[in-house]
Amino acid sequence: MYQKLRIIKAGGKLIDDENRLKRFLRAFARMEGKKILIHGGGSLASRISRRLGNEPQMVDGRRITTADDIQIVTMVYAGWVNKKIVAALQSYGCPALGLSGADAGLIRAEKRPVKEINYGFVGDIKKVNGKRVQAIIDQGIAPVFSAITHDGKGQLLNTNSDTVAAEVAVAMSKYFETELVYCFEKPGVLRDSNDDNSVISVLDEAAYHKGKRQSWFHDGMLPKLHTGFDVLKRGVATVKIGNEKMLENDRQIFTQLKL
Amino acid sequence: MYQKLRIIKAGGKLIDDENRLKRFLRAFARMEGKKILIHGGGSLASRISRRLGNEPQMVDGRRITTADDIQIVTMVYAGWVNKKIVAALQSYGCPALGLSGADAGLIRAEKRPVKEINYGFVGDIKKVNGKRVQAIIDQGIAPVFSAITHDGKGQLLNTNSDTVAAEVAVAMSKYFETELVYCFEKPGVLRDSNDDNSVISVLDEAAYHKGKRQSWFHDGMLPKLHTGFDVLKRGVATVKIGNEKMLENDRQIFTQLKL
Repeated sequence: MYQKLRIIKAGGKLIDDENRLKRFLRAFARMEGKKILIHGGGSLASRISRRLGNEPQMVDGRRITTADDIQIVTMVYAGWVNKKIVAALQSYGCPALGLSGADAGLIRAEKRPVKEINYGFVGDIKKVNGKRVQAIIDQGIAPVFSAITHDGKGQLLNTNSDTVAAEVAVAMSKYFETELVYCFEKPGVLRDSNDDNSVISVLDEAAYHKGKRQSWFHDGMLPKLHTGFDVLKRGVATVKIGNEKMLENDRQIFTQLKL
Repeated sequence: MYQKLRIIKAGGKLIDDENRLKRFLRAFARMEGKKILIHGGGSLASRISRRLGNEPQMVDGRRITTADDIQIVTMVYAGWVNKKIVAALQSYGCPALGLSGADAGLIRAEKRPVKEINYGFVGDIKKVNGKRVQAIIDQGIAPVFSAITHDGKGQLLNTNSDTVAAEVAVAMSKYFETELVYCFEKPGVLRDSNDDNSVISVLDEAAYHKGKRQSWFHDGMLPKLHTGFDVLKRGVATVKIGNEKMLENDRQIFTQLKL
């Protein structure tokens, strides 16, 4: 029997809104059992970037990461956001350790090859050192990952935080029964993107493919779902999508993916 | 018999100069035995601060840390500088783990009380969790500390990096025979600040007090020496001062403090 491990990804407007972030972190701190937190950076990197006179470049909603940008995202994600989260969790009685993929060589990535688009210093994950992550968890400490990785040759790389969460969940499935939770501002996958009461409680793969063909998923949901179904085939036991309230025990509103 | 542990503090122009930093990090990676690295932020925090339109305020060479400043120093020290150093060490084959004092609650500090001067979010160290640092070292990993601490109530604090190194060295003396090394741009304590060949190889406390009265120590050396003699009385076995070359085995030029 494997022990349970929950990997919670916090992203979207959850990170930008001080009050929602606090509520989320309190709920995370109170969660019993072994757990990992993975966070995005919200819109702070773009705001800091503009204040530094560096206009972020996006292609199809993805950030092109120049040499200036990798410095800025490392400062914001691995520096400010990560340490602010860790300090808050400590104050809520949750021993937490802030990490980037470079730390202890935990997540090695490869600079994305240039095809039609040069994404710059963006990394595709090659290997997660699950054994070392397990050693941290077994000390009763919750790892808190920012989505900065490295190539093992000294270069830091910007990596999609949903993907970091997914790859960490897959790697940890060797040691634990894993549950991956995508936490953002919406209460789940919505039938109607304007109606928060239209949460689909169980989404199976057939419904996902149908919804994809009819393109009724709301913005940014498609890659999450694609990744979610993918990791279910790679050893992750459970995938859920919802907002910070789903971490509080009495709430049972969220979307669970089923193969 | 205690095992040896070396605590190396890297600061000053060593952090600002890419080539010297590389040489220092290569030498640190090659060092055998258990080791900890503690780094300052060099002048990058002030440069980023100015680019963000926030002029750093200094009183007697010490930074006043406003709410804006604590965000900036956390971004620069715990984010960019820390992760850049960790990624470089990993590439040199040295397993390294980047840390702030907030991580795993390793260094708890207290906001400095306001007397004549309000230093803002500056922290005086109250407790180093040596047991947890030991657990990291015993996994064959070198902890790399930025000088950001926390108060345990969710507030990050800016702390002098020489002091962080000193308090970590004292705390680790319970578990190891510790050597504290202050590494900066000069080859040691100089008899004549314009002559790099005038390194004092052994400085005892009497000579220190004499030099202090006659005020012939070069800039910024006095607090280092004060701290160095203090930690020798609090369990640290050895204190040395020099530049990156002293970490390379064949070099024997540095200053050693003696009580």
